[in-house]
Amino acid sequence: MTTDTQAMMARRARLMGPNVSTFYEDPVHVVKGSGVWLWDDSGKMYLDCYNNVPHVGHCNPRVTAAITAQAGTLNTHTRYLHDGILDYIERLTDTMPPPLSTAILTCTGSEANDIALRMAEARSGHRGIIATDATYHGNTALVSQLSRSNVPGVGFGLDQYFRFVAAPDSYRTPDPDAAHFIADLEAKITELEASPHGFAALVVCPYFLNEGFPDLPDGWLKPVAARVHAAGGLLICDEVQSGFGRTGTHFWAHEKMGVTPDIVVLGKPMANGHPVGAVVTDPGTMAAFRTQFRYFNTFGGNPVSCAAAMAVLEELQGNDLMAHAARVGTYALERMGALQDKYEVIGDVRGSGLVFGAEMVLDRDTKAPATAFTDHVVNALRHRGILLSKLGRHKNTLKIRPPMPFSIANADQLFDALDAVLAETPVPT
Amino acid sequence: MTTDTQAMMARRARLMGPNVSTFYEDPVHVVKGSGVWLWDDSGKMYLDCYNNVPHVGHCNPRVTAAITAQAGTLNTHTRYLHDGILDYIERLTDTMPPPLSTAILTCTGSEANDIALRMAEARSGHRGIIATDATYHGNTALVSQLSRSNVPGVGFGLDQYFRFVAAPDSYRTPDPDAAHFIADLEAKITELEASPHGFAALVVCPYFLNEGFPDLPDGWLKPVAARVHAAGGLLICDEVQSGFGRTGTHFWAHEKMGVTPDIVVLGKPMANGHPVGAVVTDPGTMAAFRTQFRYFNTFGGNPVSCAAAMAVLEELQGNDLMAHAARVGTYALERMGALQDKYEVIGDVRGSGLVFGAEMVLDRDTKAPATAFTDHVVNALRHRGILLSKLGRHKNTLKIRPPMPFSIANADQLFDALDAVLAETPVPT
Repeated sequence: MTTDTQAMMARRARLMGPNVSTFYEDPVHVVKGSGVWLWDDSGKMYLDCYNNVPHVGHCNPRVTAAITAQAGTLNTHTRYLHDGILDYIERLTDTMPPPLSTAILTCTGSEANDIALRMAEARSGHRGIIATDATYHGNTALVSQLSRSNVPGVGFGLDQYFRFVAAPDSYRTPDPDAAHFIADLEAKITELEASPHGFAALVVCPYFLNEGFPDLPDGWLKPVAARVHAAGGLLICDEVQSGFGRTGTHFWAHEKMGVTPDIVVLGKPMANGHPVGAVVTDPGTMAAFRTQFRYFNTFGGNPVSCAAAMAVLEELQGNDLMAHAARVGTYALERMGALQDKYEVIGDVRGSGLVFGAEMVLDRDTKAPATAFTDHVVNALRHRGILLSKLGRHKNTLKIRPPMPFSIANADQLFDALDAVLAETPVPT
Repeated sequence: MTTDTQAMMARRARLMGPNVSTFYEDPVHVVKGSGVWLWDDSGKMYLDCYNNVPHVGHCNPRVTAAITAQAGTLNTHTRYLHDGILDYIERLTDTMPPPLSTAILTCTGSEANDIALRMAEARSGHRGIIATDATYHGNTALVSQLSRSNVPGVGFGLDQYFRFVAAPDSYRTPDPDAAHFIADLEAKITELEASPHGFAALVVCPYFLNEGFPDLPDGWLKPVAARVHAAGGLLICDEVQSGFGRTGTHFWAHEKMGVTPDIVVLGKPMANGHPVGAVVTDPGTMAAFRTQFRYFNTFGGNPVSCAAAMAVLEELQGNDLMAHAARVGTYALERMGALQDKYEVIGDVRGSGLVFGAEMVLDRDTKAPATAFTDHVVNALRHRGILLSKLGRHKNTLKIRPPMPFSIANADQLFDALDAVLAETPVPT
């Protein structure tokens, strides 16, 4: 860490408080971005294999132009009439199955999930929420309870409403027909039904990204959704990470998983970093929420935010970035597979489109997680100009989720660097 | 309402759901904004006497340029190091008394209040929150409970933690030394202390804007803060509406009211409509929150948001818009006072800087609220090209809160139109 970086970390602690997370042992001081590239203050260039927020590329010119034009023309709120929000919701919901025809625009995925949980309460008449045990859905008092990493005892007692099922793990505990997942879900539904809370909703990322994107067959969520609906609950699919074509095969991961959710939650990549989120649902669920809760969001759906979000859809659809993600993703899995043949430490390779990675293990038989090793690899790649991260239940899975313009040449650079790091790094035994 | 407006309202209902609020019986379809002006789709020009979000004027060129430049250079999140957020927090906290030296940046005032309430829980060890009975602080599941307009029975049981005191009302129940307010507060503190929740915080807008900006002497909150602190609670000042120089006399209304809050919440005007909010507090309260809650906000404090917010501070301070607000506000109160002399229906005139208004009554002795009349005035002014609204405990107070560049000439146009509308409108008896 340079003295400049040390000074900046001290200034952060003074102005932002303790426990403010950074990436890497030696955090990167970024000053510029373009496409799949970031630059630090020394002029060093990094290949961004991690950031999904700049979905159509850092500083995408179409998005910047849309923001500039609209910010110079008009920016107000939805208590006046404006075409921008209507045109955007129409184009967005056109990408989803018919019942999902109405939306509320917010500023963050957290705000969107906060609404989604209240929609579930309004629609079901119950409050019990089930999520997986290794996920994250946002930061409001209510939504942060969906993460088991919360400190117990604080948070206005909201933890009482939440139950957790084991996240699917295709590598360690294969469950191709979701039988184990459903058994666990049933137990938690029964537990909630026996409580004063009842069962309101199951919330999942349909590609289980935070959980380590397990290798599940297409349509895997179908019997899960059936069980949720049979119990009178709602299926909330948080597509913040998995949507907008990232998996390459489908625009939304819920399609891949064979279900039409009752509520879809959107966020991060939606406007390429401009603060926009959304909740999409059917008219009945929307009406239940809108009549039981008063809701207005000053910034939500403002003309500039809608222009930024529209530019992202245009860029995605105009350049067919989903098909591009499928091509590059297929190539990436081949190259990762070749590394798996070469290095024992790579226990499993998986992914779809532009979300892929490898699970690192100390031993392929015991599958003991190589967590510290994975951490080392992530930090070594950072010094070689490759930005990525790790995730999963054991924090031993490389998380590779680049901006959508990420190319075959970019993939080659990534895998050449990964090969070099794996070659030079001893695996602890 | 034109057929175009009717079609747009139908399209809104289809895409956004029922109960989505609009301003005016005949909502305005806005297409362009500049400074204190808005234009509708027919080319009609409106003087904006209402919107505080475009604090330094609609489409302020300095803000648009800052957003454009930063959006074309870099937009990431706080897990990388970046100077923008540090420079902004430093400049922002330099405007406040020393203990208020740390901040969390969010995307909305709602997110900021959601953090503030959890900070109060973390710092006090209690959950009981007190607010006034005629306020609004935001839209998350937790924060929306600060509004009494919530539908009872839904909202994950969070209503149990909230108690309400009567908002100060200088016109009907003068309370110049806050004795009545404190007596009510004491009763609610006692009630919370007798409950399992205890007393965590009092949340107020220090200029009580939603409550109708009562005419209170400077320093009015001082004994209130003393009582809150004596009971071990925190004083949260929501400066979303009252801050950034709006009152003309002080940059923050808490200074005007003679207190240093434990937590300051910021939102709407902070970045002129770009989605930015903040919580400012002392290092001890920040540490209590940061150690008891994990918190990360992807969009919060991103470089573009910080650039927009910094441009607002530069515009405010560089053009001394606070002194301008004081001058125009003084003139506005004189003109409103002249109208009060002329029209019996104006029962009270009050305000400070660029927040001012008049309370409409059917009878100056009984002070019976002229609520429907006020509604009529607001809608009549809209047709004359003047945009404003109403608020207060009886919804009978004109709410005038224009962008800060609002001039003496703008005030003349407003008051000439108001004079004409009052002259032509019969007061119901």
